[in-house]
Amino acid sequence: MKLATLRTGGDATTAALGFGADAFLPLPYPSVGALLADPAWRAVVEAAAAAATGPAGSLADAATIEARNAEFAPLVPNAGKVICCGLNYGDHIQEMGRNLPDYPTLFAKHADTLTGAHDTIEVRGSVKVDWEAELAVVVGSPLFRADEDQARQAIAGYTVANDLSMRDWQNRTLQWFQGKAFDATTPVGPVLVTADDVSGDFEVRGYVNGELVQSGNTGTLVFGPARLLSYISQFTKLRPGDLVLTGTPGGVGMGMTPPRFLQDGDVLTTEIAGIGRLENTIRIHTNDDAAAPRPVVATTTTKE
Amino acid sequence: MKLATLRTGGDATTAALGFGADAFLPLPYPSVGALLADPAWRAVVEAAAAAATGPAGSLADAATIEARNAEFAPLVPNAGKVICCGLNYGDHIQEMGRNLPDYPTLFAKHADTLTGAHDTIEVRGSVKVDWEAELAVVVGSPLFRADEDQARQAIAGYTVANDLSMRDWQNRTLQWFQGKAFDATTPVGPVLVTADDVSGDFEVRGYVNGELVQSGNTGTLVFGPARLLSYISQFTKLRPGDLVLTGTPGGVGMGMTPPRFLQDGDVLTTEIAGIGRLENTIRIHTNDDAAAPRPVVATTTTKE
Repeated sequence: MKLATLRTGGDATTAALGFGADAFLPLPYPSVGALLADPAWRAVVEAAAAAATGPAGSLADAATIEARNAEFAPLVPNAGKVICCGLNYGDHIQEMGRNLPDYPTLFAKHADTLTGAHDTIEVRGSVKVDWEAELAVVVGSPLFRADEDQARQAIAGYTVANDLSMRDWQNRTLQWFQGKAFDATTPVGPVLVTADDVSGDFEVRGYVNGELVQSGNTGTLVFGPARLLSYISQFTKLRPGDLVLTGTPGGVGMGMTPPRFLQDGDVLTTEIAGIGRLENTIRIHTNDDAAAPRPVVATTTTKE
Repeated sequence: MKLATLRTGGDATTAALGFGADAFLPLPYPSVGALLADPAWRAVVEAAAAAATGPAGSLADAATIEARNAEFAPLVPNAGKVICCGLNYGDHIQEMGRNLPDYPTLFAKHADTLTGAHDTIEVRGSVKVDWEAELAVVVGSPLFRADEDQARQAIAGYTVANDLSMRDWQNRTLQWFQGKAFDATTPVGPVLVTADDVSGDFEVRGYVNGELVQSGNTGTLVFGPARLLSYISQFTKLRPGDLVLTGTPGGVGMGMTPPRFLQDGDVLTTEIAGIGRLENTIRIHTNDDAAAPRPVVATTTTKE
């Protein structure tokens, strides 16, 4: 099944079930995260679908939201944890002449960084905005110190994300956080495809103004979804609605010669066949007084 | 004034106001974070105190919790954001022969890492547990793209934290997150001292089994509290109850020759004169099957 968090006027949102590609059935939960927090979420969704569909399995009699009218909120707007993995595509790592890592490189974001699948992304204060197309895993049940099999069972499903990165901020220090934590710059969605509806590996692709810039297959992930969740769960509890981004394949702008970054008005498309597609227009406010990186003068003595 | 989040049976907590050092007055909020989310929190606390105190200014007639019976929960158990700054003590940076940084080194934690001021800290899966005594700032009002003066106004107050770090995990990759994100290993509290009740710089000290191992003065911070909040607010919204850890002075175990780490049963004390004192017993479960770092074998090809 497919689940989405839709904006239905104001800030109100609702989790919904997609039937084919053309309609969503509203469910009595404010978001997919809230739905997943109900241990009976699968049964709830199936019962709602059964109640809404006629004998012919159509939604004729049900109040639905047409897909073309759907406004997608960030899939899990209130995710308690958003944990990202870097340097995870084996083929890209090896083509760079590096060894495969023994451990995943992890960093955290806050839910405020998330935005909708079709939202315009407004960037203030950065002039080196880069793309990172990624497969994202949504946690479906609590997980702590779990092995890989338990972790696999706890995966609710998969979605699409782009870990937009402000390289000028990211590279100010050794820790990437500040370049990854701009509010409302990480599109996630449009839908969650439940794990039972997909199998095998995924093709992850990123496009800028229609030009393919990134492409990778999740079969080459050094740390796959279940392995990542198991690893993370060794030190922290994962809960329904938590989000794990699995890393990005080669083809980011920073790696190009010369480096290429997003320009005001560019359209960033992130696509995973069988899961979904993000399409976000980028607005870069360079006329903003904070557009250029501003060194923060030390409060104590001057530099040696 | 002083505020604390106390455990009052089960998971229930309550924000409270300290009168001197001997009693807390319960307030109708589940935590200090919830209290601070009320824009009128100062007036609420003052009214409750006025109503509870008799003409002599005593609490004789009020139902209070004696300080010696208080069980401290993590000060802001549900902090939406916990953002930490590394490499921030100028004297320590310069004694290491480094230049002062132009930008703060920032990383994020989740609220699950927080624990109470007197809680026993149970560590599983790490054998290199290190200490980082820190001054922590609690946000008191929303802050976004604020200058330093606005940021100063938004500081509710200060508390004590120890950013316990699992160095064996932290040093597995370039990103520190996994060594900083173990659940319930970052003590915070016991109280929040409101900004209007303190002034000047603070002495931050860390002790292991009573032996002084860390000492620093916040006057040597490269990025002071208001500057840090202003900087962070350039890319993300800060809200009441959010927590910013300002970094640790020299004297961590990893920097000793030979390196020294916490042992099972050690008592870690973290103290800031005028603010408060944490005292946490460390339990290290080395008999745990996950005690030794376990390399995660790559899922794809073997290493080159």
